[in-house]
Amino acid sequence: MASNHLVYLVFSIFFFSFNTHSQDAISVNDSIDIMNVMTFQEKAWNKGDINLFMEGYLKSKELVFSGSSGPVYGWKATKKRYFKSYPTLESMGQLTFSVKKIKSLTKKTAYLIGEFYLKRAMGDSFGHFTLIWKNIEGKWLIVSDHTSSSK
Amino acid sequence: MASNHLVYLVFSIFFFSFNTHSQDAISVNDSIDIMNVMTFQEKAWNKGDINLFMEGYLKSKELVFSGSSGPVYGWKATKKRYFKSYPTLESMGQLTFSVKKIKSLTKKTAYLIGEFYLKRAMGDSFGHFTLIWKNIEGKWLIVSDHTSSSK
Repeated sequence: MASNHLVYLVFSIFFFSFNTHSQDAISVNDSIDIMNVMTFQEKAWNKGDINLFMEGYLKSKELVFSGSSGPVYGWKATKKRYFKSYPTLESMGQLTFSVKKIKSLTKKTAYLIGEFYLKRAMGDSFGHFTLIWKNIEGKWLIVSDHTSSSK
Repeated sequence: MASNHLVYLVFSIFFFSFNTHSQDAISVNDSIDIMNVMTFQEKAWNKGDINLFMEGYLKSKELVFSGSSGPVYGWKATKKRYFKSYPTLESMGQLTFSVKKIKSLTKKTAYLIGEFYLKRAMGDSFGHFTLIWKNIEGKWLIVSDHTSSSK
């Protein structure tokens, strides 16, 4: 598992280093930091720990989560929504993130395009998302998550 | 029409001035500039002019449009997608944007949460979106559009 993540990270660093334009290039360190938050969230989810998963989001009423039924404002409301939408370990399933792009907007802001896949006995769920990231006191955190589920 | 837009703008300025926290406050001028792009796009759409509508987006392969079937990369591909999804004036209908929040990320970046409503003889369409904005040489442009349609 650990070596898989390492290969993934190294691949990501190569990918992001060569596939971005100077205008929107994200630094290798920033892409590692952001990928680490994604991996952290994936692991927390797969342990069934929504509280830990929520650590990837900015703990503020500024956070916005936009799901299929429209935006939810604030970290607390977002957490509540996750607990409501995924009440059991079965409904949480096994999450895999697949990061497609990370683009820097400015030195302290970036956005990420990715896909998720939820493997579940009750029926898989998958979709894509746009995450807006902000570096606050050296820590990259999600300030906006717009997720579209295909199922 | 013009006075309606004025009232809308004045309301927006008040709304954004008093409802944001200092950390994420957007300046009145920036919110006016961004609202003006939204109004510009709305008008272009309602004239059936997708080419003009596209002027609100960053003209670059860096642009990302995420719709129901996943992300499309680049300004040209986004324009092509709009022409394909809305081949006739009937399918374009009459668009109304409703801006819910504009948040500044940094001085030169912001994001916007909004809703759209498409009034059409063939059946209305509506949904919500998250737009990421970047100020490039004094002009605010959309660099990422994640739109979820409810219908």
